[in-house]
Amino acid sequence: MEQKKRTEIASLGQFGLIDRLTAPFTPHNASTRKGVGDDAAVLTPPEGCEVLCTTDTFFEGVDFDLTYFPLKHLGYKVITAAVSDLLAMNAQPAQVTVSLGVSAKLPVEALDDLYEGIAFACREQEIDLVGGDTRASMTGLVIAVSAFGFAPREQIVYRSGAQLHDLICITGNLGAAYMGLQLLEREKRVLTDVKNPEPQFKGYEYLLEKYLKPRPRTDIIATLGEEKITPTAMIDLSDGLASDLMQICKASKCGARIYLERIPIAQQTTALAEEMHTDPVIAALNGGEDYELLFTVPLAMQEQVMRLGLIDVIGHITAESTGAFLVTPDGQEIKLKAQGFPG
Amino acid sequence: MEQKKRTEIASLGQFGLIDRLTAPFTPHNASTRKGVGDDAAVLTPPEGCEVLCTTDTFFEGVDFDLTYFPLKHLGYKVITAAVSDLLAMNAQPAQVTVSLGVSAKLPVEALDDLYEGIAFACREQEIDLVGGDTRASMTGLVIAVSAFGFAPREQIVYRSGAQLHDLICITGNLGAAYMGLQLLEREKRVLTDVKNPEPQFKGYEYLLEKYLKPRPRTDIIATLGEEKITPTAMIDLSDGLASDLMQICKASKCGARIYLERIPIAQQTTALAEEMHTDPVIAALNGGEDYELLFTVPLAMQEQVMRLGLIDVIGHITAESTGAFLVTPDGQEIKLKAQGFPG
Repeated sequence: MEQKKRTEIASLGQFGLIDRLTAPFTPHNASTRKGVGDDAAVLTPPEGCEVLCTTDTFFEGVDFDLTYFPLKHLGYKVITAAVSDLLAMNAQPAQVTVSLGVSAKLPVEALDDLYEGIAFACREQEIDLVGGDTRASMTGLVIAVSAFGFAPREQIVYRSGAQLHDLICITGNLGAAYMGLQLLEREKRVLTDVKNPEPQFKGYEYLLEKYLKPRPRTDIIATLGEEKITPTAMIDLSDGLASDLMQICKASKCGARIYLERIPIAQQTTALAEEMHTDPVIAALNGGEDYELLFTVPLAMQEQVMRLGLIDVIGHITAESTGAFLVTPDGQEIKLKAQGFPG
Repeated sequence: MEQKKRTEIASLGQFGLIDRLTAPFTPHNASTRKGVGDDAAVLTPPEGCEVLCTTDTFFEGVDFDLTYFPLKHLGYKVITAAVSDLLAMNAQPAQVTVSLGVSAKLPVEALDDLYEGIAFACREQEIDLVGGDTRASMTGLVIAVSAFGFAPREQIVYRSGAQLHDLICITGNLGAAYMGLQLLEREKRVLTDVKNPEPQFKGYEYLLEKYLKPRPRTDIIATLGEEKITPTAMIDLSDGLASDLMQICKASKCGARIYLERIPIAQQTTALAEEMHTDPVIAALNGGEDYELLFTVPLAMQEQVMRLGLIDVIGHITAESTGAFLVTPDGQEIKLKAQGFPG
């Protein structure tokens, strides 16, 4: 195996490191007035727009495992996660800041890889990196991402706007990212202490991509915009369908019924779940990190939404007093439960 | 000693914890359209203003030591650090987001204390907490703060505006926070394994306050505004005078001469430095975390600036080719060096 060059972080110093990592980033968006290089970034919102901001943190050992997570993909994924929150407000992402806590165990080349993934995502999403911070961390890698976007006030979609009888819609399919993670964890367990490990991923490439390099659904927001469909409520699927739907119910003071057979699950998700003797529906409900969009639209829009061919209608909004339920094909009603923090 | 109540984080769950911590925060500023509780916060910039944003991260074991750093103070300090970056752009701070990585070793009550300090700083600075994230961390406490502020375009002050012959000004005094840290570290070393430790802080209370609970210099920005003084360049003193002045020189493509005898150093700083056989000037130059402001104004403003009684003129801007130097009373010139990342 080729020995990669290893430059110690300490040899560059904090300012040298920041210069090296941020040098390739020059602002392109008209709304970026001042990017990296001062005490704060300066943004100029487009005429008549509000500013949307969101922040996400990623911890080594909790949110990612560097033994199998390539740093390029990780850089791409943290941008997806942040951008996805802005899309879920129906806003146009425009800027990000990335702050790192890095332990000395990582060479500068590893951070180059991370930033290459960040740069790739920024180019693809047409967003500017406008700031950040790089600090020593006593422990693992920590990544904090803030993202900024813009939208006219009347276009912004909150979690709180769902109305009785609204349709519950989702994009893509669910549980694939979770099964991708299960696969990576299985191969890690199996291949511990194996000298030249050759993990078996054949047939499950899609699951790996959904977990390691998820794409934000910018395409959906663009399509909804073109079709003049403004959802009544929206959230991105980062914590799993059950948790995220319950967030909409809580904010909108409503209940929900979703139908098990309508939840889109990819073939590879089902296949791996069977192989690993788990239930693909559990992966879809509680898996998280799919970065698909969950939203509601008025019942009258059913035909218009279905015609797009990009969106599945999985249920509808009910009165708050009825709670949130999953209905199985044989008519059983299972109360949804929020996941979250590992206990 | 009174036994404090200890609630495990896991008993509340992630969403319960976030609700508990953020419940006391209701937005007050007109520019906060939507605070905590959705995928992103929504801000409405005041008419004619740009948006300024900055982000800071704080790592247990690197940036703070919980064995002597009270969590209330830590909450206050992280807000000061973020707000200070906005003040250094001559902007009005208005919102913050706070994201945490918490290990299970901290009880919920510790996070209550942290948020009490954050709430206190927010009230004092009239800023709204508008978002954040709380995650499990495998390691110590990690705090990521983003801060948002507003300013009319023509009022924003960058690091890059310093001109030849401009005066170099600083607020307050330097090195006190660093000596406060040295004192806390000394007492920690001395009292390790002592059963009921009684650290000796008498006579050095000011140093402790400067380290544990520094105030952002909002007063200075207000006064400069009233006096219609717009600095040509500005930065906040977070990395130490030498590093921060060199940042201005780099961005403004200039050199600098500062005079050792003009650097304001508090009596307690000098006293403790003598007691600990260190040089108070080193503390002032390299100490950092003073959160005072370093700025430049045109030479013609000398009298106006000095009349305020709040600001010391410590030197002047020179040509880029001459570099950045500290001049000692006997005329020696010492080249300034940037600190940063521990090597």
